[in-house]
Amino acid sequence: MIGIDWGTSSFRAYRLAAGGAILDRVESAGGILTIPLGGFPAALQAAIGPWLAQGEALVLLCGMVGSRQGWVEAPYLPCPAGPAEIAAALTPIPHPDARLLLVPGLTSRDAAGVPDVMRGEETKLVGLLAELGPAPALLCLPGTHSKWARLEGGRITRFTTQMTGELRAVLLEHSILGRLVEPGPGSDAAFLRGVRRARQGGGLLHQVFGTRALGLLGELAAAETDDYLSGLLIGHEVRAVVEDGAPAGPVHLAGAETLCRLYALAFEEFGLTHRRHDPDIAARGLAMIAETLQ
Amino acid sequence: MIGIDWGTSSFRAYRLAAGGAILDRVESAGGILTIPLGGFPAALQAAIGPWLAQGEALVLLCGMVGSRQGWVEAPYLPCPAGPAEIAAALTPIPHPDARLLLVPGLTSRDAAGVPDVMRGEETKLVGLLAELGPAPALLCLPGTHSKWARLEGGRITRFTTQMTGELRAVLLEHSILGRLVEPGPGSDAAFLRGVRRARQGGGLLHQVFGTRALGLLGELAAAETDDYLSGLLIGHEVRAVVEDGAPAGPVHLAGAETLCRLYALAFEEFGLTHRRHDPDIAARGLAMIAETLQ
Repeated sequence: MIGIDWGTSSFRAYRLAAGGAILDRVESAGGILTIPLGGFPAALQAAIGPWLAQGEALVLLCGMVGSRQGWVEAPYLPCPAGPAEIAAALTPIPHPDARLLLVPGLTSRDAAGVPDVMRGEETKLVGLLAELGPAPALLCLPGTHSKWARLEGGRITRFTTQMTGELRAVLLEHSILGRLVEPGPGSDAAFLRGVRRARQGGGLLHQVFGTRALGLLGELAAAETDDYLSGLLIGHEVRAVVEDGAPAGPVHLAGAETLCRLYALAFEEFGLTHRRHDPDIAARGLAMIAETLQ
Repeated sequence: MIGIDWGTSSFRAYRLAAGGAILDRVESAGGILTIPLGGFPAALQAAIGPWLAQGEALVLLCGMVGSRQGWVEAPYLPCPAGPAEIAAALTPIPHPDARLLLVPGLTSRDAAGVPDVMRGEETKLVGLLAELGPAPALLCLPGTHSKWARLEGGRITRFTTQMTGELRAVLLEHSILGRLVEPGPGSDAAFLRGVRRARQGGGLLHQVFGTRALGLLGELAAAETDDYLSGLLIGHEVRAVVEDGAPAGPVHLAGAETLCRLYALAFEEFGLTHRRHDPDIAARGLAMIAETLQ
């Protein structure tokens, strides 16, 4: 089968053996924002035409390709959901040579009924489910919009999105905090200083301004401002998740190396253990959904 | 005497009688960012030359004119501080015809020693001190960077800055949240929905993303997104201040009408009473510092 993770700014296709082993892969920067109106069939053919010609007939797609801005909109599926519920809610896309199926995004609601959404990450979570089994687990997928999910009984029971990465970017690029920043080599000490500040308690709207106060008073180097701010924001993210329910075991962490290293530092500061996972879990998740389907 | 509040983007000069009554005023958009290098003496002369010619000889200036980007840098004074401490820490600016004195900004440190800074607002707080006397009081000056101050014994004992207004602006203009926003007439119901969400508890980094989730699922109108986001952010600001110590009496509120109305709505939702004050308190504060001086 073929598994595709087609996001806003990237395209990843995997040719998968039974069981989910990766036989071949195609990666490009051809995210859905680069696709012209009506251009999805041609873009898909250009990327995986050779595999289809060699006889592959099942294609599972996940990510923003299933959003309103994508190829076809796949409705959101409410949590709790596992591979079986997801496989039962796939959206077909007509295609002359293959069976194309879109993986739905997920929604989760908190105790007050306020919703959250994900699209693409559900497939990575399913990939981790395959590894972790039915015991309760807390998962963290750091990124522009970090996702934290609680798994239990082989299903994703609920999740939250944390806007940490995007907030850091807009504050550095567009707010007064950016004026004091100079590029630096990266300082774990300044990052941990920010994490500790968040862990002490207090509101983010005040503490984020402290980045500027420290700089104005010469108590934070310009080249360490970004590190401190990152620590402060990731610290607030971790604090909120822990207050919502501390995990019994390790936090399961999967994502880009640089970001996972920082999250691991923050976890240590909060007294949390963690376990790193392969970043290719989306491929495993796609294979697992397909298995449930067949 | 003459009192001047010279900020980043605005200039306000008052000709004041003994006791602080405003005899005349000059206001313009000539904030310090509009002043060319070395242009402060000429800008001042253009604005208040006629008053100087009529015999005024004492000029007190506050605001960003005393910052590193201003005319002369006035050092920060640590809290607790009242009119006497501030009057004893004025920075003179040489001038051929008048005695020019810069009001210092203030710093405050929390229990962990992390600093905060203000420049310009200290003068408004002194103006409120004149009205409120020595009893403990909690003051709120809403704005791009809202200031909350605790007064006691006729001095400003400590304060915090909340980056609420600027965060709302950068999120609407530069983050993914802005994509779902359409202009609207303003909805108090949507604003209060955001305030209540914040009051329930939970982290801001997650709840701010909820603005998008609600929009994607059709549970928040595009024309009400800004109202909801404002309520959420102001709600988090008020929650953090209340958690840091709820006031025994009303919150004393001074600032622009539109913003004060929203803050008053949020206070009601938190069960706080409030009292509105004249937005011209900077003039009274400048007069009070000058009285202490003479």
